[in-house]
Amino acid sequence: MKLTRAYSTHLGSTIPAAKAKYVPTSGTYPKGFSASGAFCGVKPGNTNKPDIAIVTSDRDCSAAAVFTKNKFQAAPVTFSRKLLQSRANAGLRSVIVNSGNANAVTGIGGLQDAAQMAETTDQRVGEKSSTIVMSTGVIGQRLPIQKIVDSIPNAVKSAGDQHKDWLRCANAICTTDTFPKLMSKSFKLPSSPGIEYRIAGMTKGAGMLAPNMATLLTILATDAPVAPGIMTNVLRHAVDRSFNSITVDGDTSTNDTVALLANGAAGGKEVSSEQSPDYEAFQTVLTDFATDLAKYIVRDGEGATKFVTIRVVDSASEESARQVARSIALSPLVKTALYGKDANWGRILCAAGYALISKPGQPVNDVPEIIPEKTNVSFIPTDGSKELQLLVNGEPEQVDEERASEILEMEDLEILVKLGTGDKTAVHWTCDFSHDYVTINGDYRT
Amino acid sequence: MKLTRAYSTHLGSTIPAAKAKYVPTSGTYPKGFSASGAFCGVKPGNTNKPDIAIVTSDRDCSAAAVFTKNKFQAAPVTFSRKLLQSRANAGLRSVIVNSGNANAVTGIGGLQDAAQMAETTDQRVGEKSSTIVMSTGVIGQRLPIQKIVDSIPNAVKSAGDQHKDWLRCANAICTTDTFPKLMSKSFKLPSSPGIEYRIAGMTKGAGMLAPNMATLLTILATDAPVAPGIMTNVLRHAVDRSFNSITVDGDTSTNDTVALLANGAAGGKEVSSEQSPDYEAFQTVLTDFATDLAKYIVRDGEGATKFVTIRVVDSASEESARQVARSIALSPLVKTALYGKDANWGRILCAAGYALISKPGQPVNDVPEIIPEKTNVSFIPTDGSKELQLLVNGEPEQVDEERASEILEMEDLEILVKLGTGDKTAVHWTCDFSHDYVTINGDYRT
Repeated sequence: MKLTRAYSTHLGSTIPAAKAKYVPTSGTYPKGFSASGAFCGVKPGNTNKPDIAIVTSDRDCSAAAVFTKNKFQAAPVTFSRKLLQSRANAGLRSVIVNSGNANAVTGIGGLQDAAQMAETTDQRVGEKSSTIVMSTGVIGQRLPIQKIVDSIPNAVKSAGDQHKDWLRCANAICTTDTFPKLMSKSFKLPSSPGIEYRIAGMTKGAGMLAPNMATLLTILATDAPVAPGIMTNVLRHAVDRSFNSITVDGDTSTNDTVALLANGAAGGKEVSSEQSPDYEAFQTVLTDFATDLAKYIVRDGEGATKFVTIRVVDSASEESARQVARSIALSPLVKTALYGKDANWGRILCAAGYALISKPGQPVNDVPEIIPEKTNVSFIPTDGSKELQLLVNGEPEQVDEERASEILEMEDLEILVKLGTGDKTAVHWTCDFSHDYVTINGDYRT
Repeated sequence: MKLTRAYSTHLGSTIPAAKAKYVPTSGTYPKGFSASGAFCGVKPGNTNKPDIAIVTSDRDCSAAAVFTKNKFQAAPVTFSRKLLQSRANAGLRSVIVNSGNANAVTGIGGLQDAAQMAETTDQRVGEKSSTIVMSTGVIGQRLPIQKIVDSIPNAVKSAGDQHKDWLRCANAICTTDTFPKLMSKSFKLPSSPGIEYRIAGMTKGAGMLAPNMATLLTILATDAPVAPGIMTNVLRHAVDRSFNSITVDGDTSTNDTVALLANGAAGGKEVSSEQSPDYEAFQTVLTDFATDLAKYIVRDGEGATKFVTIRVVDSASEESARQVARSIALSPLVKTALYGKDANWGRILCAAGYALISKPGQPVNDVPEIIPEKTNVSFIPTDGSKELQLLVNGEPEQVDEERASEILEMEDLEILVKLGTGDKTAVHWTCDFSHDYVTINGDYRT
């Protein structure tokens, strides 16, 4: 099998022409933060690509993170969760990341390795118990911890606040990603109209992606002043509507982590009450930002050739809408049909139809949220041209196959499902399922 | 994309050499039943392969069926469920099947088509309201009903009780299957030791397979006398442990149906009480028979190169064990690793670890059934050689990769997961995920 993606990082590798437009050439980064990507050689075959990343603040941050619910949580997840609890989301400084090895299912030794990564960073930064740890890569192998510990001083020393530093950092967290995923933007908050705040974020994804709490690794940093007590809620809100609303293959990883740091370096009034206009404004900024970042992951899904938005509307509840959208997004038959540019809407219906049913061996449940006679399905072209109705009130349309083919030729596509049983909505983003996905994952470790 | 499987049936096509051994060359069939497969041309491209199948009894049968829970139930499912209810599981005679078109999501017209298939068969057989209907194939297109109605008389007339008749029938229900799936055997019941009973069954599968109540289409026929009142329970027991314990791709179809007919033609004492030794004996015979038949479907999964048994033991409950086994079986990352012959046990753990967790956006649940420190994972070679331990009490073993490769070269493999939290067990059968699956399903309709 021919591998179409190099492992484990991509600085120096060629970014596919179609993806180059997603890599920023400049940015506006939050004050007081610096970033770097350094070479370590975590994975034996890696001889020159950066695989240690650090984001660090020159002052204390409020911080929060959401983690995978997978029962086999990686050592860095266990370590970082405990750290944030013990610090009550305050006094954090850094995030240290290695790619090439997930430090997952590595027993007690793995926990010690994660702690050592944090302590080494703490020492260099000069603040005890201030470093969040993340790892990504193969599961079940111990880290080459001495190599990593030896590389951290260089990573800290070389950290800078320029675009190139952030980009190198975003590169260093990649695994089978084909392009680094970095974004930054400015925003304002109602209480401090004279101040320009900034938020930057990076993420990595590609496979083992059905985030549940978060996707593989995401770091978000802002110079807005946000109180520790509200960090978790504002992050959770954003994650549920962004990283928890994307899937590539349906596998919820052992390492999923999204961390948010806010250092207040830009000054202004602290966001401290969930009832304030500032909170609402910041929540919107964060959710939109996280959603844009999450979409990059889908666009770079392993083997993906399509970016598909699944919008479920007129649902009796948001939860039902989410489950229907997710079921369609995860269906291998829907995904292979999209890859084959086949307007096989029967498979979309089929996946919607089993989204809410009980498991095998359990009694049949009622599922009043789906009524075939009220269900509508359309393809929405993303070039603004007319929608193509496939199913109207449970009755199939005579589909214009030529028009369907036209729509399916486009890289972006929206599938609109109207359930007709309420007024709630959910959106899920996914990609197709291609030969390359099988190739990449049939031969990942070697 | 090159199609590696012809659609829609395989009589006359070449059966792959490795699969030929699963096609019986003789059989022992239940008295009073006859079977046939006839050509109709349901799918426009089909010019000579049988695509209408009938199994019919010369006397009234007790009958039961379990159906898909998918909310978009195909017209034949709706029709047959109502029929069995109205007849209280008694007085049935025939099962009529077409392949090449699922008659699913076809609105009111589709229901009329299903009824017309049944009525035409009833007329030829000479018994009103006695025919169960099944369809399989593409979703969302109306049946060529006139062609089907015109073909039914010939199908009824040509029905016979010889091996060749049953085999032609088993061929006619196939779609992307590469071989017909037919089995028969004799058995005895405690109360009638002098009588030899027979059971025959056929099934078809290949894709859209995560049966929930049943797999695509299965017909089981026996000449044992079984009372109508106990048919549903005995069938449900068997299906939960057979067709509901296999998966190919995780898509629960709109047409899943398993039907059992018992005509009592062999005589003897009727099985009528669920507390009788005869019931227990018949339940065991039926469950084992259905399990063997279900395994054929996995062995012929679309694109499959491996037959994988996932055995989860020492579980706190059977339900948890089933969910863990199913989660591993459905993981695209586990399935592609198996295809790539990669002993990537980290993915097995990962899939076990998200089997019982709550959905995104919902609070973290406890999942006491899985404790990483108590979990063990091994590969069990099917040639009787020594097991290969991968994870022992949550700590990874130094895996002998050469031995792992040896085991993964074999077509059959067992993955054993010991949860260490109880004494319950579940078994699930699945296949790997290959390039051919993507090819077959990227271009199915056309």
